[in-house]
Amino acid sequence: MTEPWTLHPDRALPADPAARDVAREIYTAVRDLPIVSMHGHVPVEWFRDDPSFGDPAQLFVVPDHYLTRMLVSQGETLPRLGVGSTPDEAVETDPREIWRRFCAGWKHFRGTPTRYWLEHALVENLGVTQRPSAQTADALYDEVAARIADPAFRPRALLDTFDIEVIATTDPAWAALDAHAELAAAGLGDRILPTFRPDPLLHVDLPTWSDDVARLGAAAGVDVTSYDRYLEALRTQRDRFVAAGARATDHGHLAADTTPLDDVEARRVFDAALAGTVTAAEAQAFSGHMLFQMAAMSAEDGLVMQLHPGVLRNHASDPFAAFGPDKGYDIPVVTEFTRSLRPVLDAFGHHPGFRMIAFTVDEDVYSRELAPLAGVYPALRLGAPWWFLDAPDAMRRFREAATETAGFSNMSGFVDDTRAFCSIPARHDLSRRVDAGYLARLVLEHRLDLDEATDTAVDLAYRLPQAAYARP
Amino acid sequence: MTEPWTLHPDRALPADPAARDVAREIYTAVRDLPIVSMHGHVPVEWFRDDPSFGDPAQLFVVPDHYLTRMLVSQGETLPRLGVGSTPDEAVETDPREIWRRFCAGWKHFRGTPTRYWLEHALVENLGVTQRPSAQTADALYDEVAARIADPAFRPRALLDTFDIEVIATTDPAWAALDAHAELAAAGLGDRILPTFRPDPLLHVDLPTWSDDVARLGAAAGVDVTSYDRYLEALRTQRDRFVAAGARATDHGHLAADTTPLDDVEARRVFDAALAGTVTAAEAQAFSGHMLFQMAAMSAEDGLVMQLHPGVLRNHASDPFAAFGPDKGYDIPVVTEFTRSLRPVLDAFGHHPGFRMIAFTVDEDVYSRELAPLAGVYPALRLGAPWWFLDAPDAMRRFREAATETAGFSNMSGFVDDTRAFCSIPARHDLSRRVDAGYLARLVLEHRLDLDEATDTAVDLAYRLPQAAYARP
Amino acid sequence: MTEPWTLHPDRALPADPAARDVAREIYTAVRDLPIVSMHGHVPVEWFRDDPSFGDPAQLFVVPDHYLTRMLVSQGETLPRLGVGSTPDEAVETDPREIWRRFCAGWKHFRGTPTRYWLEHALVENLGVTQRPSAQTADALYDEVAARIADPAFRPRALLDTFDIEVIATTDPAWAALDAHAELAAAGLGDRILPTFRPDPLLHVDLPTWSDDVARLGAAAGVDVTSYDRYLEALRTQRDRFVAAGARATDHGHLAADTTPLDDVEARRVFDAALAGTVTAAEAQAFSGHMLFQMAAMSAEDGLVMQLHPGVLRNHASDPFAAFGPDKGYDIPVVTEFTRSLRPVLDAFGHHPGFRMIAFTVDEDVYSRELAPLAGVYPALRLGAPWWFLDAPDAMRRFREAATETAGFSNMSGFVDDTRAFCSIPARHDLSRRVDAGYLARLVLEHRLDLDEATDTAVDLAYRLPQAAYARP
Repeated sequence: MTEPWTLHPDRALPADPAARDVAREIYTAVRDLPIVSMHGHVPVEWFRDDPSFGDPAQLFVVPDHYLTRMLVSQGETLPRLGVGSTPDEAVETDPREIWRRFCAGWKHFRGTPTRYWLEHALVENLGVTQRPSAQTADALYDEVAARIADPAFRPRALLDTFDIEVIATTDPAWAALDAHAELAAAGLGDRILPTFRPDPLLHVDLPTWSDDVARLGAAAGVDVTSYDRYLEALRTQRDRFVAAGARATDHGHLAADTTPLDDVEARRVFDAALAGTVTAAEAQAFSGHMLFQMAAMSAEDGLVMQLHPGVLRNHASDPFAAFGPDKGYDIPVVTEFTRSLRPVLDAFGHHPGFRMIAFTVDEDVYSRELAPLAGVYPALRLGAPWWFLDAPDAMRRFREAATETAGFSNMSGFVDDTRAFCSIPARHDLSRRVDAGYLARLVLEHRLDLDEATDTAVDLAYRLPQAAYARP
Repeated sequence: MTEPWTLHPDRALPADPAARDVAREIYTAVRDLPIVSMHGHVPVEWFRDDPSFGDPAQLFVVPDHYLTRMLVSQGETLPRLGVGSTPDEAVETDPREIWRRFCAGWKHFRGTPTRYWLEHALVENLGVTQRPSAQTADALYDEVAARIADPAFRPRALLDTFDIEVIATTDPAWAALDAHAELAAAGLGDRILPTFRPDPLLHVDLPTWSDDVARLGAAAGVDVTSYDRYLEALRTQRDRFVAAGARATDHGHLAADTTPLDDVEARRVFDAALAGTVTAAEAQAFSGHMLFQMAAMSAEDGLVMQLHPGVLRNHASDPFAAFGPDKGYDIPVVTEFTRSLRPVLDAFGHHPGFRMIAFTVDEDVYSRELAPLAGVYPALRLGAPWWFLDAPDAMRRFREAATETAGFSNMSGFVDDTRAFCSIPARHDLSRRVDAGYLARLVLEHRLDLDEATDTAVDLAYRLPQAAYARP
Repeated sequence: MTEPWTLHPDRALPADPAARDVAREIYTAVRDLPIVSMHGHVPVEWFRDDPSFGDPAQLFVVPDHYLTRMLVSQGETLPRLGVGSTPDEAVETDPREIWRRFCAGWKHFRGTPTRYWLEHALVENLGVTQRPSAQTADALYDEVAARIADPAFRPRALLDTFDIEVIATTDPAWAALDAHAELAAAGLGDRILPTFRPDPLLHVDLPTWSDDVARLGAAAGVDVTSYDRYLEALRTQRDRFVAAGARATDHGHLAADTTPLDDVEARRVFDAALAGTVTAAEAQAFSGHMLFQMAAMSAEDGLVMQLHPGVLRNHASDPFAAFGPDKGYDIPVVTEFTRSLRPVLDAFGHHPGFRMIAFTVDEDVYSRELAPLAGVYPALRLGAPWWFLDAPDAMRRFREAATETAGFSNMSGFVDDTRAFCSIPARHDLSRRVDAGYLARLVLEHRLDLDEATDTAVDLAYRLPQAAYARP
């Protein structure tokens, strides 16, 4: 422990020496490929304003719900970790104190991807020399603080440092995309792309719905007084996103249902929503209907449709009331795809202009539903392991469960989906290592030749994400 | 790539050298065992007429929905692969052109069992010397065409070449079994067995149902004007199958439900079906009821009941309308067994004359439902990994998920279930290799002795399928 | 086979030599730790009366439903294995004959944990020298009989031999706990703890319910004529258990539902139950309501709430009628936790006095539901692999599926849950070996340092069960 902290070059490669040798050779071929990061939640303002990341706690602890949820599960509280803003909460404001609490809980991250990502960022990207612990917390804080104060550690510089070829932000459907316009003017238009996210507009029983529809109308220059105007406004904004370089839409519904309503019923439900009389069942049916409409629009305008279903948001009511969404209380549920996607795939599954990428946090569906579907419909690609499944053993299970039926060509390749900008290199690196390990096994089992495995590794890390998000 | 194509003798054995050595020893003990192929979809006419297999495309591409679905998912179309017959479709008729498209898409089969089966058939059974690719397509076509033109590559000769001890076809419940009678007269009656498949008769809302019932009646010599006559006709035909050497029935329902109706209700639904007034719900209930009736008849006549539930057929409507069923658009759904099989198992689960073999494409049920059920009911055997799960990693997962609760003795051993006759040796060979790898691990973990593992490998490859399909 | 039977010291450790070396080092650090057995079904009378275990059949065959179900599945019957007492059943009474049937079926246990446990008990605990087989049955019987006749093989002595630091029995909610009082008087009060099991009282449509409620009332000294008195009686008995050293309650519901009713509805359903007019739907809703009430009481009195849902009991009606419950006919079903536990976790998930440990036999929920829940709610711990999943490969899958999201700290560590007292050392030993293998892989993949892995192994075997069952 007294020697400087370094990471083993073979970490996350297979334990078996024979497999490791082959995996290392495959990994070497993809290690230095540029990063294609086609979906995430990094704020576009970071790239426009290029700010300093502040202090270590603000960079690594406070906004990372993977990290805070683990500490909360072990007795910390969100306010003591700097989360929250309501005046009656004792929100910790001393970043060093927050950092100490994180370091004291380092043990609890054993076996988790959070640990891998943090180690990679701290050692590989920041060059720190000490492991987190109660004892090292202050010295480590100083190390990290000094490094992130360096102008070389600002967002735009990191795009180069991290070798990010292209990165997509996620933007509300009503966005004016001013920040993206500024980035385009600065020559970054091909590198930082917007993504069209209409979720709050498609759930007509949300308390925020009326306001958000008004925002949509204002952005689109359409007075949204009817269902048809609503579709028109969505189309107008999609066109704006297309013009700004967007490649994709993103949809975070609870279920994957895509059953369309007929126009009369869709108009009736929409009017009821405007009148505030919509029922929960109507709202649910309407959200499935709108996924079908989004697919229809995608088939026209070529935006790739990303579907991220199956997460029950804000499972605990008190933390949601106090701290808002995205605080670690989103829990997966059983998710059905075979029947749910049937309407969209039956209508557009062979359409040359349509592509859907489906993600899941219910890994049961890999072999049973998603791989069989992606293995026949040309429009469907199977996304990378998502959220809780973006972890070494889960990624391996994904490859093992999906590849035999879907093959590699029907997958999106790696997609990181993070709001933690500094974890992007770690996530891509981990994915490349795990894939190298999986492919090495296929080589040693004589199911692939080494040259094929290496070619496939490049596909998964680089070519497939490019191809999957190219508008058809 | 310039040296002749050969397959590695250790393919699909474990990558770890220590495990491989043990696995090779176990595999050697089963490699040359005869093939027991107790369920499949090879047309009985192939054995009666003993034709040439035609051209390479007709043998390996056009009828193989595993293969065509993958190419379709990557942008080919069924007509361009020679599938279809409607006059307004541009169905490719040049087998060499179809073969070129298959070879050009060879990359997409990386990691799939289709690749393993094709490699085995091409190299081990046909002796070709070049890998498929756009460059080698024509030369490979000529190689394959020359080999399959040889009379030694006709169905009956291949029975010996492949060392198939016994093979079961699947036949409609109304079959007269003339072809089987001819085979019996030719001395092949113990080697080629019929299987009783009543599916279209048990789903009373199918548009084909009335015609099929009429066929059943004609075959059985029963005027099927009532539910009781319908049961009588089914019994009569079952007896005909028994007399012709059948060992089993086969049932492909969407759900595993086996809930019986009372006689009054069964008669009512049947009459409604005859009158064309049956509802979807009634038809579904009736199909579950008929599974119970089939079990009851099995307990009388000793036909082993094979249940293959959980596949939603013809997911896309346009391909179904244009090309018909079995074209790659069958997708698994969640399948429940614990409650669904309870009526049948409660009634016949300890009956000395009853045996059911249950298959699934929902692998979640292995450890949760099927292994616990097979591990207590003497009548129930757990079938081999089926359809999409008949692949190396999926077969390994099956062993790992099911064995600890069901043991080996409650499994059917390997069952291939293919309509691709030339893939039969490859499928059995792959299964034997994967089982050898699994058993080798148990030996190295000192959970089995080597002599026990070898004995178990012989059980799984040979003795258990024989025993499972022996009429009790 | 002629040399004396010994077990390999590396059994159940990884097959790969590199992993085995590391695993052996980790295992060595935990091998000799005391056993903490916080949940099980050993009768408290065994410790009070300290009897001899009788004969080999009564010790190892007749009461072990893992063992008898496997033999039944292969054609034995429960009466021939000594199970049953009704006069019209030909129940085998010769223990030697029962033992012979078990030995003749030894092959069927290949690959099962039953085999591991039995081998461990026979060789490590009893020192027998011959493997079970039809040939050795009689000699083995004599060996076992001689050993268990030794006073050193009585329950209290075995507590020391097995190095059991603490063991919890499971006791009906109406228990007077006299046996525990006697044990306390004998100085064993801290070593043998009761557990509060109210299941039959919470399912108001059970035919035994009225009698059991009367027993509860009698034990608590409360005349249970109303819902409020019923709660009062439950509280009184919980307090008695707390006073007797209980750490936990145990709940074996079919579903995990915890939705509370309002007081008016709860009283109404309870009164209907007293009147014998309750419906199945009301009874089911009431059972979920009572889980919520149990959680509320736990938050007050600190009893850890163990939830064991998802098993459909007594799947076959004839064996249940003839031989009663717990005879091997309990089969898992799909079990939902995310929505089902929401009421309890929303109300008490952050309560400092509440802890729930959730178990499952539906392993799909590990990565999808239980690990995400345990990874954020401080009150929830994820229990050890349970019942059919308490087996080497299933335990490994549990670690792989749950750890990346829940971490180790949110797990209960090993909990054995057995009624087979003599299998306790084997079960703990197997768990320690499997965990050592899993941790060794993390070490070799450089995801953990060896000192961390060893520390974690001690947590899982010893510290975490202690901590999880410490009243908060």
